[in-house]
Amino acid sequence: MVDPDSFSPRHFGDRLTTAISKKGTPLVVGIDPRVGQLPEKIKNGMDANDCESVANAFAEFGIAVIDVVKDLVPAVKPQAAFFEQLGPLGMAALAQVVDHAAAEGLIVVMDAKRGDIGSTAQAYAQAYLGTKSQTAWGCDCLTVNPYMGFDTLEPFFNTAQSNGAGLFVLCKTSNPGSDALQEQLTEGGKKIHQHVAEEIQRLCAQTQGDSGYGIVGAVVGATYPQQLVELRKQMPNSILLVPGFGAQGGTASDVAGAFDENGLGALVNSSRGIIFAYEQHRYQAQAKDDWRLAVKQATKDTIEILATGTNAGKLTKDNR
Amino acid sequence: MVDPDSFSPRHFGDRLTTAISKKGTPLVVGIDPRVGQLPEKIKNGMDANDCESVANAFAEFGIAVIDVVKDLVPAVKPQAAFFEQLGPLGMAALAQVVDHAAAEGLIVVMDAKRGDIGSTAQAYAQAYLGTKSQTAWGCDCLTVNPYMGFDTLEPFFNTAQSNGAGLFVLCKTSNPGSDALQEQLTEGGKKIHQHVAEEIQRLCAQTQGDSGYGIVGAVVGATYPQQLVELRKQMPNSILLVPGFGAQGGTASDVAGAFDENGLGALVNSSRGIIFAYEQHRYQAQAKDDWRLAVKQATKDTIEILATGTNAGKLTKDNR
Repeated sequence: MVDPDSFSPRHFGDRLTTAISKKGTPLVVGIDPRVGQLPEKIKNGMDANDCESVANAFAEFGIAVIDVVKDLVPAVKPQAAFFEQLGPLGMAALAQVVDHAAAEGLIVVMDAKRGDIGSTAQAYAQAYLGTKSQTAWGCDCLTVNPYMGFDTLEPFFNTAQSNGAGLFVLCKTSNPGSDALQEQLTEGGKKIHQHVAEEIQRLCAQTQGDSGYGIVGAVVGATYPQQLVELRKQMPNSILLVPGFGAQGGTASDVAGAFDENGLGALVNSSRGIIFAYEQHRYQAQAKDDWRLAVKQATKDTIEILATGTNAGKLTKDNR
Repeated sequence: MVDPDSFSPRHFGDRLTTAISKKGTPLVVGIDPRVGQLPEKIKNGMDANDCESVANAFAEFGIAVIDVVKDLVPAVKPQAAFFEQLGPLGMAALAQVVDHAAAEGLIVVMDAKRGDIGSTAQAYAQAYLGTKSQTAWGCDCLTVNPYMGFDTLEPFFNTAQSNGAGLFVLCKTSNPGSDALQEQLTEGGKKIHQHVAEEIQRLCAQTQGDSGYGIVGAVVGATYPQQLVELRKQMPNSILLVPGFGAQGGTASDVAGAFDENGLGALVNSSRGIIFAYEQHRYQAQAKDDWRLAVKQATKDTIEILATGTNAGKLTKDNR
């Protein structure tokens, strides 16, 4: 295995691989705040009918979660929708969360699933893909929707390449209805998500870093383990972002196929199972003292589950 | 033809059809501010390197455009990307533009092309789909991306139905590369965009209003006139949102297929051709006095082109 310390700090695939190696885990923590599930400590004094009050609570919660997990995981994934739901004040809270994660040295995966054509796609790319000195939001990467066509990925790809950032293109998503379009078998014998995978691999082959990985990742749900194995093969140079682990039903053996033989090449997301751990019976002991202790224990447990049940265990032996 | 005054003010398809009938045109003006193309009057004093300064200029520009077109067209379509590019301050400017359009009685089509699964889709729906007393952004409708599957449209559909709002689902987009996935022929003989059209029509048949139109529209590009004719037939109860007219190359005869026999059932978008009309040689006379006069003349000219070259002429005869 190549030494991650020799990887380029300006190349997204290398940066992410280095971060995964250093933290010894592929776990990314999703920051998906929901009003009804905030810890009592944060809910106290919050006015659920006032966007500003809720936005402040979301920022406080997101920042607190980051402080708990920052030494344990390589990346966090804020979900734009929950902040956007609060209007512009929610977006300001999202920016606070992103800024805090970046300041703590975490890779920020902005989960916003953007997509548009030409100069509009360019505007979204310019919004997110780069540091705070390069873009308004300052994220390391962005989830992107390919429905409009592969020409619409170009502005994202080019901006990412210029700014040392990356993309995660939706390929096979974790929801039950993802078959409606993604599993359609087309004339030449390929399924729709395989067409997307082919394009992702093409872009990764062009941008392969020292780590072997390019700058375009693929979103492939843990709820479809068979496709995960096939897509890992079809996109040898793409880092897979795997949602659906934990709360959505995916287990360690379901996500095992996402990894390469060194335990690299995948980011596995857990959101609700970690950030709302204090709601779970098994974390009541920790939650009684401090909700953050429950989040910490759940993070450690999830890292352990991934290390035991997948090749990610090879990372932990070397690096933790 | 049914009297639009009898249509339900709580049903999106009816509301939009009424607005089109009353203004006598299907033209929707896209609000896509770009730093380099703002009128001198607004650019003066703006610091292009300061997000707050640019956001203020975007709000001023968007509001001024609305004031020019509000008596002429039924709807405006702000493009979220250009505001999002400026970070949270840009989102605050977007909110100002939306609020102003709504206060002036215009239908607001939020062009944000959102899409996600389950509770995340619900958060996006709850962000946009409804009045300001129902949601943070207060828009009449939202553009939505179907790639993740038809189950992911449900939260948008249900929220729209509850709140008297609507959706425009991406079906056949106007960009050159839209064939990559949308034109793929699948096993049963249908193309991907036809699968999407089938789902849109199903949702419209369930929600047909007095106007004959349901609450789920379809985005179909003016740059594909043949598909526009076919999709009009396949989705008799869906209002088509047609981008690509004007600056992207679509002509009146290209969009003619989008209309029903009464000149209804379509919204035709023009953005750059109208909002940056002062850059065009033929509007120099107006632009010399006031950039807004150029925008006004371009709006009138575009309305006339649509009235002459499509069934929208039947509206203008009755209503203008």
